[in-house]
Amino acid sequence: MKEGFLLVISGPAGTGKGTVCNALLEKDKDIMFSVSSTTRLPREGEVDGVNYNFITKEIFEKMVEADKFLEHAYVHTNYYGTSEESVMKGVADGKVVLLEIDVQGALQVKEKHPEVVTIFLLPPSMEELERRIVDRNTETEEEINKRMENAYKEISLVSKYDYYVVNDDLDIAINEIESIVKAEKLRVKRNPKIEDYILEKGGN
Amino acid sequence: MKEGFLLVISGPAGTGKGTVCNALLEKDKDIMFSVSSTTRLPREGEVDGVNYNFITKEIFEKMVEADKFLEHAYVHTNYYGTSEESVMKGVADGKVVLLEIDVQGALQVKEKHPEVVTIFLLPPSMEELERRIVDRNTETEEEINKRMENAYKEISLVSKYDYYVVNDDLDIAINEIESIVKAEKLRVKRNPKIEDYILEKGGN
Repeated sequence: MKEGFLLVISGPAGTGKGTVCNALLEKDKDIMFSVSSTTRLPREGEVDGVNYNFITKEIFEKMVEADKFLEHAYVHTNYYGTSEESVMKGVADGKVVLLEIDVQGALQVKEKHPEVVTIFLLPPSMEELERRIVDRNTETEEEINKRMENAYKEISLVSKYDYYVVNDDLDIAINEIESIVKAEKLRVKRNPKIEDYILEKGGN
Repeated sequence: MKEGFLLVISGPAGTGKGTVCNALLEKDKDIMFSVSSTTRLPREGEVDGVNYNFITKEIFEKMVEADKFLEHAYVHTNYYGTSEESVMKGVADGKVVLLEIDVQGALQVKEKHPEVVTIFLLPPSMEELERRIVDRNTETEEEINKRMENAYKEISLVSKYDYYVVNDDLDIAINEIESIVKAEKLRVKRNPKIEDYILEKGGN
């Protein structure tokens, strides 16, 4: 029985984490998306248990106290977090569990579970990153500057990650992440029984 | 500038190391084959510097004394070894240097250079391994039994390797090794300058 693993895809806002993760889930049915928990209200069309687990602030805070989260953050008056139990159940079932989180969250997870596979999604350049954020046309100049400032800080943390993937061409980026997933599945340390498997088949 | 790495493909006799390595070199021109040194005489068609570096016993022994080999072995009255200098020059030039060696040699290399990437090539089963060795029709029953005995011992060392690949279908095995190579190229630790590269491009 193969062990699964937790795959963390992270990177500054505007590098295209969401697009990359959606394309990856679409292509590789063996990858399972980890549903985060949040205290914010569902938006139009969002489904409880699919997009997020929508829970109350009281429950969230109790879970924080009981150390039930792999990582959590407080963003714009709402909590967001990844329940350790749900992720680790998928991993124990042999699944690759995909977690799309910000840089701070990713480093929290890596510290708790060093065996987690972390990928830092990089923009092709800082110029291109700014262009993408500006093109979204959803932020004020002040917000854009703040995001760029954060991006500089976050990229300096790339050394704490296992892998990097530059998101220039989406197909190439997806292909690179698929190679990482395939290689990690072939790690001897994730398949402690591989030796017995081969030897026993010969014993028949 | 990307750092290269040394890729060691190893496994018991009969798992198809040679076939796999030749197919890999054929497909991926970025992979460079590491030429071993030997004291045995060239066979018909073998070219010095291509198949092997053919050197005298005296030179080989001097190189052993001077610790010039990554690994070496004495097999059937001849020495075989991998010169550390030639391999490490390729790695410094950013190349993936492929080394096809036996299990003992692979573990010697891994001990000296833990950053080396090691792949253990496994047979689909011990039965199939025996069938392949018998089908080659080049060995006596005693030699076959000896090879199988060695294979059992060697497979018990798979836990010391980074990756395993089962050589059942050759195309699948090659594809898996290519994924491992691609993933290892994307390791942050092999690209210490990736951060500067992205940040500097933005500074223009």
